[in-house]
Amino acid sequence: MKRIAIDMDEVIANTAISLLNLFNQQYDQDVTKEELEGKSLIQVRPHYRKEIESFYTSEAFFRSLDVVSDSQTVIVELQEQYEIFIATAAMEVPASFKAKYEWLKEHFPSIQDSHIVFCGDKSIVNADYLIDDNLNQLHLFRGEGILYSAPHNRFATGFTRVDNWLDVRELFVNKGFI
Amino acid sequence: MKRIAIDMDEVIANTAISLLNLFNQQYDQDVTKEELEGKSLIQVRPHYRKEIESFYTSEAFFRSLDVVSDSQTVIVELQEQYEIFIATAAMEVPASFKAKYEWLKEHFPSIQDSHIVFCGDKSIVNADYLIDDNLNQLHLFRGEGILYSAPHNRFATGFTRVDNWLDVRELFVNKGFI
Repeated sequence: MKRIAIDMDEVIANTAISLLNLFNQQYDQDVTKEELEGKSLIQVRPHYRKEIESFYTSEAFFRSLDVVSDSQTVIVELQEQYEIFIATAAMEVPASFKAKYEWLKEHFPSIQDSHIVFCGDKSIVNADYLIDDNLNQLHLFRGEGILYSAPHNRFATGFTRVDNWLDVRELFVNKGFI
Repeated sequence: MKRIAIDMDEVIANTAISLLNLFNQQYDQDVTKEELEGKSLIQVRPHYRKEIESFYTSEAFFRSLDVVSDSQTVIVELQEQYEIFIATAAMEVPASFKAKYEWLKEHFPSIQDSHIVFCGDKSIVNADYLIDDNLNQLHLFRGEGILYSAPHNRFATGFTRVDNWLDVRELFVNKGFI
């Protein structure tokens, strides 16, 4: 059975959009999704760097993230044909460990504890495929990388790209991408 | 540069001995190290199962563990010739994530965040070697396993065995085990 590792932020958790909504609400701003294309929120509102960074030290932020559409059903389908691991770079934000774990247990109950990996450098992940929005991590990974579209990677090339979880289903389930 | 993954509990952190000392002290018991040979503390004192398990849900317990002798100096030496990752099965004990991370930052400052991995199944670890006291994990691992001696694995065979960190130095630094 081939093994797919799946990133968390921007792939199964709507981190950037949740951050945008919270930021707009809390600081009475009106940054749009479109402004985030190819940029981070800190790049769009550099004077709010500290305030934006403070969300990333909050357990409550990581516990409250929205689930990316269709990721739950497609992951359950993938588990019939592939071994699925969640691999997330939690080391950058120690406050996020427990919240991310609890979030996964709530929203992805079919993923066993033993198939959750917190790491900082995805070259350590031993899997056939990695679905990730982060180009650096895809370059580090030693298997075949699949780029999950996000505003910040819109112009990137060099990897098979999926725009949403229906694309992931098409690639791995319908077309049998093995 | 070859890569060595190193387990945490019983390899660089004296978890079982710290547990034994705390248990003896807190419950006025006198279990000896010798009684733990080939057994867990729960097997030696089954009537205290709940009390023993409660240590494993305590952040303070994981934050207070003693460092295994010579592990700090030998790991720094190894880093000159090998890429070193710490890979620990923290998923069994969610309360331990943050405490384990902070413990590593305090006692092993030369290990970067990106080289710390929390996982439950070490088949996901992409490294050339794994130093671990847990036979199940060594069997799951896809590289070459090195068995670090602990009371519970005293009678196990099938892997190169090291009894302490001076043995690790001998194997990887002096003998150039590559």
